[in-house]
Amino acid sequence: MGRWEPNARDRLAQAAMTLFQEHGYDRTTVEEIAARAGLTERTFFRYFTDKKEVLFGGSDALHERIVTTIAGAPQGTAPLDAVATALDAMAPFFKDRREHARARQALLAAHADLRERELIKLASLASAAADTLRKRGVTEPTASLAAEAGIAVFKVAFERWLEDPKEQDLSRHIQLGLDELRAVTASTGPVAPAVAPAAPPQRPTRPARARKP
Amino acid sequence: MGRWEPNARDRLAQAAMTLFQEHGYDRTTVEEIAARAGLTERTFFRYFTDKKEVLFGGSDALHERIVTTIAGAPQGTAPLDAVATALDAMAPFFKDRREHARARQALLAAHADLRERELIKLASLASAAADTLRKRGVTEPTASLAAEAGIAVFKVAFERWLEDPKEQDLSRHIQLGLDELRAVTASTGPVAPAVAPAAPPQRPTRPARARKP
Repeated sequence: MGRWEPNARDRLAQAAMTLFQEHGYDRTTVEEIAARAGLTERTFFRYFTDKKEVLFGGSDALHERIVTTIAGAPQGTAPLDAVATALDAMAPFFKDRREHARARQALLAAHADLRERELIKLASLASAAADTLRKRGVTEPTASLAAEAGIAVFKVAFERWLEDPKEQDLSRHIQLGLDELRAVTASTGPVAPAVAPAAPPQRPTRPARARKP
Repeated sequence: MGRWEPNARDRLAQAAMTLFQEHGYDRTTVEEIAARAGLTERTFFRYFTDKKEVLFGGSDALHERIVTTIAGAPQGTAPLDAVATALDAMAPFFKDRREHARARQALLAAHADLRERELIKLASLASAAADTLRKRGVTEPTASLAAEAGIAVFKVAFERWLEDPKEQDLSRHIQLGLDELRAVTASTGPVAPAVAPAAPPQRPTRPARARKP
């Protein structure tokens, strides 16, 4: 079998998803995945470290996209705007992949170890985003908060996108999520009790939802 | 050995932390932990499902505190305010435990499986918070966003607290984190974009330390 198979990564991922659905995730072996894709196990392990990783094949590309988008944002871009642009730049990866993403989500719902891996990937995206912001001169805790809040928006938007009966784009859900995050934070006061009522400067409340063109 | 040992949970947790630091996490067994605490392995497993779990002994209490605080917030409290109050209500759990928390964090930094467990616990706190908000009538995506953003604040605040040379309270770091989250979201415009170059409202550049040339 040739050393460099065309589209090996995609073929393996597709074969894996088919087998997971046909036989169940637990009962599918790497050998079967490779065979279904018409490839060898050795080729499988050239692309993925284990069976789980097949479901996270795109994460390196997402990682790179986030980092380059934030790094490339115009000078003076507010941190959350830079993160927002990066989230939006991830959306095309999921275009026409809603069905695949739904099937994948069903597997995650059924397997705690897959959910753990997903959380690790998301945490690593947040950490890469924070890192890139710091390289742009954003200080802490701003960098971490903008990054973590951004990834929280992505996580919620992604779930909404999967369930959306209107099938609006992921990009749209990310935008709605960011608007909602702004509305949620704008509609609160300082931490009420316990400590000291040193009110932070309040900004005028934005019109929450209707900001879309 | 008596069936109900006083403070068994705390004694086991303390013994575990001591042994992890003396012999390393990997080389410490449940048997040794139990022996050091003057208890049996059987008692250990009455409190913890595995060795990892010793480091997450407080998570059920945190979970309950979050849920009851959010559920008990006055009617009409804004969602993020309810979450903020719940975060603040978690702070007392960590009072006088900064050294313990630092030692624990060092273990997490060295062991990926512990970091995974930590992420799972945080995700489960976020999910409990969102659930409780929904029970109060908060709709989606507001409930999930307020919960996820709140937990993001907690995560960042916790790390800042551990590293704070001024040793300010966790409660103070939570408050600073919430203020910063509000500042971060208030200073941004709608998602600008990759797609159409509608420049987001620019803010004055922050003092840029290490800005790349």
